[in-house]
Amino acid sequence: MFAYKCIVSYDGSRYNGWQKQGNTSNTIQEKIENVLSRMLDENIEIFGSGRTDAGVHALAQTFHFHCGLHITNEYDVPDFLSAANSFLPKDIRIQSIEECDLRFHARLNAKGKTYCYRIDTSPYGNLFIRNFSHHIPQKLDMDAIKKGADLLIGTHDYKSFCSNKRFKKSSIRTIYTIEIIEKDEIIEILYHGNGFLYNMVRIMTGTLIEIGLGIREVQSIEIALSECNRSFAGHTAPAQGLFLVSVDYE
Amino acid sequence: MFAYKCIVSYDGSRYNGWQKQGNTSNTIQEKIENVLSRMLDENIEIFGSGRTDAGVHALAQTFHFHCGLHITNEYDVPDFLSAANSFLPKDIRIQSIEECDLRFHARLNAKGKTYCYRIDTSPYGNLFIRNFSHHIPQKLDMDAIKKGADLLIGTHDYKSFCSNKRFKKSSIRTIYTIEIIEKDEIIEILYHGNGFLYNMVRIMTGTLIEIGLGIREVQSIEIALSECNRSFAGHTAPAQGLFLVSVDYE
Repeated sequence: MFAYKCIVSYDGSRYNGWQKQGNTSNTIQEKIENVLSRMLDENIEIFGSGRTDAGVHALAQTFHFHCGLHITNEYDVPDFLSAANSFLPKDIRIQSIEECDLRFHARLNAKGKTYCYRIDTSPYGNLFIRNFSHHIPQKLDMDAIKKGADLLIGTHDYKSFCSNKRFKKSSIRTIYTIEIIEKDEIIEILYHGNGFLYNMVRIMTGTLIEIGLGIREVQSIEIALSECNRSFAGHTAPAQGLFLVSVDYE
Repeated sequence: MFAYKCIVSYDGSRYNGWQKQGNTSNTIQEKIENVLSRMLDENIEIFGSGRTDAGVHALAQTFHFHCGLHITNEYDVPDFLSAANSFLPKDIRIQSIEECDLRFHARLNAKGKTYCYRIDTSPYGNLFIRNFSHHIPQKLDMDAIKKGADLLIGTHDYKSFCSNKRFKKSSIRTIYTIEIIEKDEIIEILYHGNGFLYNMVRIMTGTLIEIGLGIREVQSIEIALSECNRSFAGHTAPAQGLFLVSVDYE
């Protein structure tokens, strides 16, 4: 048995998210498993670093899988990737494959993740990124957003920023940095943390957007962090603006 | 009668080009005329700075039109543009409208144009720009491309770089600059000239690509310019990598 670690990028627009769950079909996981199973002539199950929701994109999602064939001996790696990508839909591209330790687990070994949320504030929307951004045709108060973002950084219980009401495990996470990049009328918010709860990045972003629009106070972040109640945070920003940028391993 | 000058951006992927011609339907011109005619309650004909082919995009195409209504008096301009854009498909966005002289003509008064051709040389293609670039998963010789581009600059008869064999008018044009920008694995070639013949940017790009791949000599550009025969230039690069960036007026 051999183990492989892969990095994949995808445009999530037309998928029901990363993960197969019950009867959910049309997932990115399923598309990749079908192609690898066909190419390797055995039933391949892949394990992602985490799920991404319907409509969320990835620049570099990581997954691992086990298989009986020693792929990197049997194939030239660029040829194998070219073949896999030619079988995959155009909106999913495996960028790399490397042999890894049989004990490697893409989710359990992940030390941190970076997500990017992209907002387009141009008056009528930049149509070239219309599926890859959230269009808010208003001027946002960037100073207020930066102050709000600073309050989100650190080790906190982010329960107010989680959509899963029945979440039983610890909702304490650490956000190392939140970087805000403004270029022309595009705002990108980069979140780097040790892990994120269900919808956490989208709720943090929705909360920061409300602060930027002046309909929420900066200090409400502190209250939301201490109250541990979803109703104290802002709305869930739409999926199409969100990208999983990278997953860190040791 | 009043005259208006507009700037529009579009994703050309699913259109049969800018211009209505005979029975051609599904053109960008037609989509805009339909919306303006409906909003202004009169038959509006628009005149672009030039046609763009099927699949070619525009960051800032310019057009003008005449109408009986004094739009900028009757409407608040941002409201008018928001309404027009809400009626237009999501891949066409009018960015501005301003009153202009009745004698202004978007094509006849154009003093120059800038086009950008984008090439993605990443191994498996950047899927986020898959409709807005030409994917060539090979290393291109950028020095050779730059030398070839330098030979294209100037005032020349570009007949070899024109797809229209029956073109009767002068095929002499001036290219002021060709700027080549490399960022990560993306190459953008920006052409600024006083005018371009049918398919000229795509044929120049196809020729430069062949030079970059080492299957054509840099000096072949000089021969193509002097021979005035289409067969001396390279292939026509695909439409999806081409953008009309801007049109210059006095």
